[in-house]
Amino acid sequence: MKMKMKISSFLFFLALFHLLCFSKTHAAVPEFCVGDTSAPETPSGYHCKPTANVTVDDFIFTGLAAPGNTTNIIKAAVTPAFAAQFPGVNGLGISIARLDLAPHGVVPLHTHSGATELLIVVEGTILAGFISNANAVYYKKLKKGDVMVFPQGLLHFQLNVGRRPALAFASFTSAEPGLQITALALFGNSLPSELVTGTTFLSLKEVKRLKAVLGGTN
Amino acid sequence: MKMKMKISSFLFFLALFHLLCFSKTHAAVPEFCVGDTSAPETPSGYHCKPTANVTVDDFIFTGLAAPGNTTNIIKAAVTPAFAAQFPGVNGLGISIARLDLAPHGVVPLHTHSGATELLIVVEGTILAGFISNANAVYYKKLKKGDVMVFPQGLLHFQLNVGRRPALAFASFTSAEPGLQITALALFGNSLPSELVTGTTFLSLKEVKRLKAVLGGTN
Amino acid sequence: MKMKMKISSFLFFLALFHLLCFSKTHAAVPEFCVGDTSAPETPSGYHCKPTANVTVDDFIFTGLAAPGNTTNIIKAAVTPAFAAQFPGVNGLGISIARLDLAPHGVVPLHTHSGATELLIVVEGTILAGFISNANAVYYKKLKKGDVMVFPQGLLHFQLNVGRRPALAFASFTSAEPGLQITALALFGNSLPSELVTGTTFLSLKEVKRLKAVLGGTN
Amino acid sequence: MKMKMKISSFLFFLALFHLLCFSKTHAAVPEFCVGDTSAPETPSGYHCKPTANVTVDDFIFTGLAAPGNTTNIIKAAVTPAFAAQFPGVNGLGISIARLDLAPHGVVPLHTHSGATELLIVVEGTILAGFISNANAVYYKKLKKGDVMVFPQGLLHFQLNVGRRPALAFASFTSAEPGLQITALALFGNSLPSELVTGTTFLSLKEVKRLKAVLGGTN
Amino acid sequence: MKMKMKISSFLFFLALFHLLCFSKTHAAVPEFCVGDTSAPETPSGYHCKPTANVTVDDFIFTGLAAPGNTTNIIKAAVTPAFAAQFPGVNGLGISIARLDLAPHGVVPLHTHSGATELLIVVEGTILAGFISNANAVYYKKLKKGDVMVFPQGLLHFQLNVGRRPALAFASFTSAEPGLQITALALFGNSLPSELVTGTTFLSLKEVKRLKAVLGGTN
Amino acid sequence: MKMKMKISSFLFFLALFHLLCFSKTHAAVPEFCVGDTSAPETPSGYHCKPTANVTVDDFIFTGLAAPGNTTNIIKAAVTPAFAAQFPGVNGLGISIARLDLAPHGVVPLHTHSGATELLIVVEGTILAGFISNANAVYYKKLKKGDVMVFPQGLLHFQLNVGRRPALAFASFTSAEPGLQITALALFGNSLPSELVTGTTFLSLKEVKRLKAVLGGTN
Repeated sequence: MKMKMKISSFLFFLALFHLLCFSKTHAAVPEFCVGDTSAPETPSGYHCKPTANVTVDDFIFTGLAAPGNTTNIIKAAVTPAFAAQFPGVNGLGISIARLDLAPHGVVPLHTHSGATELLIVVEGTILAGFISNANAVYYKKLKKGDVMVFPQGLLHFQLNVGRRPALAFASFTSAEPGLQITALALFGNSLPSELVTGTTFLSLKEVKRLKAVLGGTN
Repeated sequence: MKMKMKISSFLFFLALFHLLCFSKTHAAVPEFCVGDTSAPETPSGYHCKPTANVTVDDFIFTGLAAPGNTTNIIKAAVTPAFAAQFPGVNGLGISIARLDLAPHGVVPLHTHSGATELLIVVEGTILAGFISNANAVYYKKLKKGDVMVFPQGLLHFQLNVGRRPALAFASFTSAEPGLQITALALFGNSLPSELVTGTTFLSLKEVKRLKAVLGGTN
Repeated sequence: MKMKMKISSFLFFLALFHLLCFSKTHAAVPEFCVGDTSAPETPSGYHCKPTANVTVDDFIFTGLAAPGNTTNIIKAAVTPAFAAQFPGVNGLGISIARLDLAPHGVVPLHTHSGATELLIVVEGTILAGFISNANAVYYKKLKKGDVMVFPQGLLHFQLNVGRRPALAFASFTSAEPGLQITALALFGNSLPSELVTGTTFLSLKEVKRLKAVLGGTN
Repeated sequence: MKMKMKISSFLFFLALFHLLCFSKTHAAVPEFCVGDTSAPETPSGYHCKPTANVTVDDFIFTGLAAPGNTTNIIKAAVTPAFAAQFPGVNGLGISIARLDLAPHGVVPLHTHSGATELLIVVEGTILAGFISNANAVYYKKLKKGDVMVFPQGLLHFQLNVGRRPALAFASFTSAEPGLQITALALFGNSLPSELVTGTTFLSLKEVKRLKAVLGGTN
Repeated sequence: MKMKMKISSFLFFLALFHLLCFSKTHAAVPEFCVGDTSAPETPSGYHCKPTANVTVDDFIFTGLAAPGNTTNIIKAAVTPAFAAQFPGVNGLGISIARLDLAPHGVVPLHTHSGATELLIVVEGTILAGFISNANAVYYKKLKKGDVMVFPQGLLHFQLNVGRRPALAFASFTSAEPGLQITALALFGNSLPSELVTGTTFLSLKEVKRLKAVLGGTN
Repeated sequence: MKMKMKISSFLFFLALFHLLCFSKTHAAVPEFCVGDTSAPETPSGYHCKPTANVTVDDFIFTGLAAPGNTTNIIKAAVTPAFAAQFPGVNGLGISIARLDLAPHGVVPLHTHSGATELLIVVEGTILAGFISNANAVYYKKLKKGDVMVFPQGLLHFQLNVGRRPALAFASFTSAEPGLQITALALFGNSLPSELVTGTTFLSLKEVKRLKAVLGGTN
């Protein structure tokens, strides 16, 4: 097999011209689609910001660098870098969040609408687990550097069982994974207490107590 | 393992504030995308109506409650609840239709562009079937409560073989499954009769007869 | 435009042969994939039963014809026709279930791992609703013939608020949608009571009470 | 910004070792999945042949080089390079077929279960078209080098309207696109003539005539 | 089994009316979505042109009929029919390109962001190959009529090793497959020479030489 | 609205029985599919390990806890937790890797076959960037806590530009993202030097030099 490639200066210009044109032709292709969060969404995500306006900063999110404020009822903070906060992931099917857990802090039982979560512990000791559709329970203490996967749509939780603050990052199989904290969904809204009772087996008294705690009405 | 959770009234306010804020942050996420059918579509469906304007009625369709009019050539009516009629399913990959079949009524041979159909018979007796790519025929009489699946893109039909009206509901793996009734596609348009003949083996005479019946031209 | 198609008897045989061969060539294509539930699964579902062994009965499920037994704690029964019960839907991304609700019967708050549900009420009056990620509540009384969609992964419930039994069918955007009833996931297994308390805000007393009711331990 | 990269001979060996190991670790990843057509299929396609047994010939198909035999009823031949014939495309969501059309040759009206087709004419003049769900007809004469797309699941056809043989290649959005020729599906099997009549509006006489021509029974 | 279908002239009108209405109802469904390239894109592609404005010409692309100009540095031309050039494929997950290779012409090593390529050689002799993640090399000389598949995202190339011009068509599993020519990506832009050196092992001298050839800076 | 729920001890047993049965019915559903890496793969991943054999340890990966060995040519180590190493992510469309970069360490220019990468910097300062299909360059210095996304299939790199070791975690939109390091793909195998030259514009001398460095032949 034998190949030659003679490049005259004349062809250089032609080639350059050709290749640049070619590249331009492809510039319209949504190899990425930085979200324009000011326009209406579509089922596949936000509209794409024009490529000409895109800069490297669109692909970088700095909002996870600082710890979230854990001075709250759950002693925890979840800081999302989803498409709404980080438009660079729009349409790419992935996103990330920062979990800060003070000692005894907890991310209460929750689900992400159809997204799988992958957690990496960066500091501290976290007890994490999920519950399967067969109501089997899978939970364990995770140490620094451990990774755990929470299959899509299943109830799961994270709990700092160490003496010091814990830090973890959670990746998701969606640019907009959603987050439904069961306790808030049950007690933190206007769903009538009797309906909550009737659909959960919880006592009316307990429901009303938690409605008061979590800002619910009715 | 040991956990404590002391909740002072002070923290209540903080927590409430935190949690509500958190929830708001997520409000932009298209966990659902009620279609705005007045704007142009995208390959993934209609644009999302702003969440602030969404009410429970967007997720409910009442148009299947009444029987369709079966006083027609096929003694049948198909009433769709697809994204165009029921914008609540937009982007969710599912939809439904109501089938009313008077005695001898028929949903003629048809396909749904790439969508699978799942039929549940609610009243009456329906002979239903499909034809595979290998031209194998799978058909049987379905009774009340029977379910049949018609794999995506394959020709299928439903026929009331009972003495009374039949009722069924068909779910689809698409919010906009499409519907192509073979007889209408062949004879109910301007496709030249000779082209129909040449691409179906049907006689020109039969093609012209059916063009006249089904409103075709040429 | 002009087309002719002369068919001599000689060509008939040739053609027949050709077309049958052609069809056979395509017989291997998984236009459908009736599940072999005896072999290990894959992420995309069960292995396909050989086409030669497939009959029309593989595409039909009769198990939803009879009412489920509602003599139980929830006065309700959910009868699934998922891939495990109805291998004909394997790989096709759709399935169905029958809901029987005695008066006051309830399908308690639950999710389907990432599947959207589309409900059609066939008999009776059902109060149905779901809770969004923003903790907004969408619920309403559904009458016979009404359809409601529950977007993927969100908590939802159905409740018979009429005086007579209610019947509904629920379609799903998955051949194996999963079902996670929150109360069972929280109280019907070995998840330690303290962990339940710590991740839900529920009182230990209430957790222990419900563990006893729903068959949980620890 | 400043970078140095000193490479001592000692590190060379280490690096080599590291990188080769690394590559090996990744060898298990199904960047491709040449189909093992002897084992049962799954909804996502055939099992993967072990990478160690894969050679370049698995990714090449030579069966489209020779013209198909057009001495038949349709004066046409479709030669598929789908996963069953060309296991290299297994799992990759694409395949191709060769179309040979003698003068007046035709690929009769047909669909591919849910796959879109992209046709490129290489020789001759082909009249090609499709019918939309709204029964609109889109057809035109294609010349050498012209490309036409047939959206998924819609009825379409190709017809040689030139005086010389035509050649085209059709790509599909599936490794196993399926092919359902309407005439064969209607008349080339055991579907009872009365059922065909009842679901197509065709006369019984015409149905029986074509059953005889196309090898159907009943 | 017995079926009758009496069609009175009166019912004809009713039926016609019904069926046409029905068809119209479905006209809004995006069975296809011809791209409006003048509006912003979405992650799933361009917005759909209104169906009323769509003609058969939207589904046909004639720009591949003429050979590309191969008087350039690579003695080759790639003429794309992607969604930007051929809006008819928008949202359909497929596209095509024409490859013209003068003798010794080459499509240099390149990838398509996540799209698989299927190549059919129409004229001449092409040496084509790809490199796997395990750094295995798969290449071979392709003759007229041969097909080769290049699995998604892997580096591949095509080279005319014959004495005459070669022609091939490449189909892709995306309406907008992208194209990243490694040499241009490395040397044809403003990426600092030291960064190129540091991330490729290439000598600074070679990097600077190629930057000059391929129009790069820094 | 009014609901009552009287629970007699008798019904308790019935209910318990019912609910447990129900849960068991669903146990077959692949809400997760821990990979059996000993059996052949499918296009959708490995076969599922029987649920009965699954334990919490299947969902946890501890192999990222320890730093990788950076005493090598690139002063870097990439430790993957893909499906082959971490079968718990099989079929879930996500995976993760640990990046250790000594000072001046580099992950050379590379792609992942069709997977998007999301990088979070945990320690140190990393210069990271990618090159678009239009050959635009997007790169920036990332600090601890910064996140950057690398859209699918595009060439990208990471470089430690700090004085101390850097640590980062990279998530991917695939359980088996693949990794193709350009330098190794070009020079670390048996691809003939002339072919490398002919498809990259690199000089034969430079190709041979790097073949020697990176273990290539021919």
